[in-house]
Amino acid sequence: MLNLVIAETALETIPVETFRHTSLKKIRNSGKKPTEILLDRTLHHFAILSSNLKQDYKRARPDISHIILLNALATPLFKINQLKVFVHTINNQVIKIKDNVRIPKSYARYEGLILDLIKNKKIVSKDGIVLLELSDNLSFSDLLQTYIKPDIIVGLSINGVFKNFEDISKELFQFKNPCIVVGGFPKGHFSEHIESHLEKKYSISNLSLEAHIVVSRLIYEFEKINNIN
Amino acid sequence: MLNLVIAETALETIPVETFRHTSLKKIRNSGKKPTEILLDRTLHHFAILSSNLKQDYKRARPDISHIILLNALATPLFKINQLKVFVHTINNQVIKIKDNVRIPKSYARYEGLILDLIKNKKIVSKDGIVLLELSDNLSFSDLLQTYIKPDIIVGLSINGVFKNFEDISKELFQFKNPCIVVGGFPKGHFSEHIESHLEKKYSISNLSLEAHIVVSRLIYEFEKINNIN
Repeated sequence: MLNLVIAETALETIPVETFRHTSLKKIRNSGKKPTEILLDRTLHHFAILSSNLKQDYKRARPDISHIILLNALATPLFKINQLKVFVHTINNQVIKIKDNVRIPKSYARYEGLILDLIKNKKIVSKDGIVLLELSDNLSFSDLLQTYIKPDIIVGLSINGVFKNFEDISKELFQFKNPCIVVGGFPKGHFSEHIESHLEKKYSISNLSLEAHIVVSRLIYEFEKINNIN
Repeated sequence: MLNLVIAETALETIPVETFRHTSLKKIRNSGKKPTEILLDRTLHHFAILSSNLKQDYKRARPDISHIILLNALATPLFKINQLKVFVHTINNQVIKIKDNVRIPKSYARYEGLILDLIKNKKIVSKDGIVLLELSDNLSFSDLLQTYIKPDIIVGLSINGVFKNFEDISKELFQFKNPCIVVGGFPKGHFSEHIESHLEKKYSISNLSLEAHIVVSRLIYEFEKINNIN
């Protein structure tokens, strides 16, 4: 069993102060509410800069969570229900991804799904099974302490101690309910709040690896040590 | 050095017979030409079914190539110029991806880039460096025989002989210019033309793995055997 938390993920609806910016007049005129639009640097770059969003370099990249999830949920480990995946966002929302869920490869469909989830707090299948669940105001601490309850918390970060994927997997394998934490943001580091919960912090490469690559490789090595194939 | 060919990739502009379908009236009225639109099942599903496209189950999934490329081009192997990547499409177009190229994580930007490439046959940087190049009417044979000239061609397919990623990488490592072939389509198998060029054909898992997972894991094992990290 492995828990994966994608932390401080750059996934949120557009803040009101950004929505009000003149450059987004067309979007406002379309009749959409800010809660119905994902903040996205591709579309809202100037409005983001002009509205002085805090830590804007860590935000507005919903595509990152999409690619990480496509890599995590297509693995054998997830398919046999041995991987639990949580998306913790920059605004302390937490998405719990249930077993056997597949998310759309099409980004447009993923965006629609997430907006539906943000609005309704749940995505339920035709058979009434909950596929995705969103909790508002669930901090990283609360997610760990009241929900996952891991026996080891390992963060992956460029400023950790060097250790390769194989050795990290061997270490995780010693525990019953390990939790691995990867940043879901484009630039910068974990906040102090996240850092304070990491019992170990490892760096995997001298090259700065993107989160979807890190997640893929770690899950693969964890499968190997568990003889899953 | 490793060559990666993504073969028969579901990447093409919308065929005229599909473009003419009544369900796509809005798109036609927008003034866009069929050569300015990628065929996409998310948007053109009914038109695809109604226009009786040949082998439609293998087509209309441009998102697949995007995700495979995001996984291949973010690897250390590609970053140190030891991985050459070619996208061979279902219509015998070939995209040559030059060293150090990064493609956008945003699907909308990727789509724009590919349409620009299809139109202009090249994407050139501000400094005049060719980043992507598209050849029309370059068959899989021609790509291999006149361009890549590999000393071994290995295909990965669910109907191959079982071999794990580590052992495939060890085998590839014996050669100077090996070529690995992965399908860039959602369902079905390689065509007979592709099959006839594969010197070895391996299956990696009892579970059907998606192409982006296969590509990630193979590149990672190839890096390990080459001591790249």
